[in-house]
Parts: sequence; C-alpha cells; structure tokens
Amino acid sequence: MKKRLLLLSNSTNLGESYLFYAHQEIKKFLGESVQKILFIPFAGVTLTYDEYTERVGKVFKNLGYKIEGIHGSENDHELIAKAEAIVVGGGNTFHLIHWLHKSRVIEIIREKVNHGTPYIGWSAGSNVACPTIKTTNDMPIIDPISFSALNLVPFQINPHYTDAVIPNHNGESREKRIKEFLVVNPDIYVVGFKEGTMLNIEGTSIKLIGNQTMRLFKFGEPIVEYDSNSNLDFLLK
Amino acid sequence: MKKRLLLLSNSTNLGESYLFYAHQEIKKFLGESVQKILFIPFAGVTLTYDEYTERVGKVFKNLGYKIEGIHGSENDHELIAKAEAIVVGGGNTFHLIHWLHKSRVIEIIREKVNHGTPYIGWSAGSNVACPTIKTTNDMPIIDPISFSALNLVPFQINPHYTDAVIPNHNGESREKRIKEFLVVNPDIYVVGFKEGTMLNIEGTSIKLIGNQTMRLFKFGEPIVEYDSNSNLDFLLK
Repeated sequence: MKKRLLLLSNSTNLGESYLFYAHQEIKKFLGESVQKILFIPFAGVTLTYDEYTERVGKVFKNLGYKIEGIHGSENDHELIAKAEAIVVGGGNTFHLIHWLHKSRVIEIIREKVNHGTPYIGWSAGSNVACPTIKTTNDMPIIDPISFSALNLVPFQINPHYTDAVIPNHNGESREKRIKEFLVVNPDIYVVGFKEGTMLNIEGTSIKLIGNQTMRLFKFGEPIVEYDSNSNLDFLLK
Repeated sequence: MKKRLLLLSNSTNLGESYLFYAHQEIKKFLGESVQKILFIPFAGVTLTYDEYTERVGKVFKNLGYKIEGIHGSENDHELIAKAEAIVVGGGNTFHLIHWLHKSRVIEIIREKVNHGTPYIGWSAGSNVACPTIKTTNDMPIIDPISFSALNLVPFQINPHYTDAVIPNHNGESREKRIKEFLVVNPDIYVVGFKEGTMLNIEGTSIKLIGNQTMRLFKFGEPIVEYDSNSNLDFLLK
C-alpha cells in the first residue's frame, strides 16, 4: 500500500474553532473505511494527555471517527499494529520526540505508516514526520534522547512559517533561522509551511492545500514560492 | 575573587549601532585593569568566526580593549587560562553549546569565571551562562552533545523576552513557551529578559540594568515584574 500523510502547519487559524480549517480535508483524507484512530498526545505539556485526547476526540467524533489515546496502554505496540490511522497532535516538539523515543514506539509507527496506514499531524506532529526535529520553533524544554524523527518525508518542515516579525523587536526572523539551519545542513530542503495550509502525500505524489503559498529553502539556492497548483513531487525523491 | 558577570539580553536594539546600548556598562564593568579579552564566536553560523571576531573587535577597540578569538588557536586551554576577561557573543545557542562541549573548553571556562575572571555574554552568550540551554528561542539546527551549559548562575534566562506576538499568527507566545518549560522543570526560576536590559552579577549581588522591567517565572507562582531598583539577590541562592 502506498504511503499516505496529511500534514497541517497548525491546528487552528486565529479566530476559528479547533482544527476547523482542516475538517473537510481530514474527512476526505480518511474517507469511510477508517473508523478508529490512534492518537499520540506526547506533544501536550500544559494539559494532560487525557484532556488533550478528549479535545481532539470531540473534533474527530463530529467528523465520524473515534479517537483512542496511546498513553496509559499496557500494550502500545499492539495498539499501533492494529491502528487504522495515526494522528499526532501539536504542542512541544522536544517533548513529543523525547517520548516517542522513550516509549520505544518511533520505529513501529514509522514502519506502520510506511506500509500504508494514514498519518495525520499538525505543528509538532508535522515536524516529527521529517528526518529530524531541527526546524522546529519550539523551546527545548527537555533534552530529548535524539533529534531523529519519523523520517516519513525526506525534507524538513518549518510549521507556523511566517515572514512577519514582532514589531520593534530584534530577535531573528524565521527566514534567518532557516538560513542558519541550511549552513549546518546544506543537503536538505526546508518547507516554510504557512498557517492554514496542508501537505497531502499519496505515495510518490505531494500536493499543497490551501490559499497560501509555501516557501522552499535550500542552501545556496534562491527561495522559491509554490502554490497549490505546483508540482512538488521532486520533494519526495 | 568574586564572580563577575555582565549578561545582555541582546546585542543591539532596533535602529542602534552594534552593541550600542551596552557600551557604557561594558566599560564600567571591565574597567581599566583589563586590556585583552578572549572572544568565543561559536554562536556565529551565517558569518565566519573571523568575521564575527572582527565585528566585535571593532566595538571593543573603541572602548579601549583588544579582542582575540578562541578559534583556530593551537592551545585554547592556555588562552582561557591567561584570559583577562571572556566574552561570548550571540547567534545560535545550539551551535554555541555544541562547540563549547566539542572543543572541551566548557569546564575550564566555568572554573575560570567562578574564580573571578569577568564574563560578558549577550543573547546565546547569556543563555549559556545558565544551568542549561532549555530556555533559548533559537532553532535546534544541530543536535548538541549536551544541553548542559556553564551554570554560572542558578536560574534560566530567556533572552529577547517580549510579551508581543506576531500579528494574525497562532504560534505560541513567549509566556506560553516558558510555562511549558516550567511544567517539565518546576524547580528553577526563569528570567524573562527584555531587549535593552542587562544583568550585572558581582559575587552574591545581582542587579537589573535598563529602563525595562524583567519578568520572573516559577512553576505554580504568579509572574512577578522587577525593575532596576529591585533586590534580586535571592536569585543567586
């Protein structure tokens, strides 16, 4: 079976209800054959895993799907093996990757998704679909076992990408941070992934969804803007 | 000899020349007895260590001090041992801490500063004076050997602290990120360290310098604002 991913930049656009902008795409992506979804809440820090799972569960219930959290299970490997789809929520990427390694589920999730189980992630959940977490915006609140991630796509994603900066503030812009990344990691693409947009991977095909462009960064190359009509399949090679 | 540090939130305020807001405080802090300063440029990524050292050297030359970069030295341990003052510049905190560990200078710098050699840092250079780098804003462009830092002060600093957020953007505010840090690290203070402010540590005394307040965060406690008249010595206990 072909690999299938729906990656979201963010959970929620400003002023909208939780995950609202992605409702229709999630429904289209999961279709009718999926009923029960495994949820990974490890990016949640300021709410409990139960609270997080409940919050996400409500949205998916309205779309016709049942969510089950991986946490607290006696046999998480069996849960993953049986999962019809896997959803990884956002929050803190360092916390998420630490617990994916610590609970020893990272490889079994990778294998499962590589064999065709649909994967949905937003924000940190999109970041961990990349080779490493090195393009996250999050604070390194925990020193994770490793920066290595699920490696479901061969490029890096910078979620919540924006060209805007905080007014009257001298912190680095997102573009400057990504350029620092490229100096140390010159061989990999970075997708500047704007809020309100999604990436849908179906085997060897990848499409941008949404009204905003994405910006593509590579060391020594000009930054290129792509829109939802662009052929992006080269990113999967 | 007592421990002496001058920590800056940022190198440069918007619209000012490089390090301008700190010129007089640097001069006051180093005084007349210091002549030659050792500079650590490891946070520099998008400019070479030579370029970075030259840039900083110009500012310090105008203040009456000579800067020498630690990079490229055959005997960096001897350079540190002989240093009259140590200056650690900003840039990328992950890159800085990685190379402090990798070049095996972190412990000898810590010992040297603990025995009274003046230390100046800004941005990433202030961050690495803390127990760990876990409150940096930077992108984790490199997986460092360890998050452990110089531990010259017993609290964490969040440089470039601001309450402002990017307009129409749903990324986490700085306050939210620090609150995530506190959940995982409940026993340590975090200083929200605004641009244009400095902290001067002289033995068991610590003072905020500048017209802006600092915000102090601790798990389960209300956020407190302190100004340059506040007694902050409890932070060093």
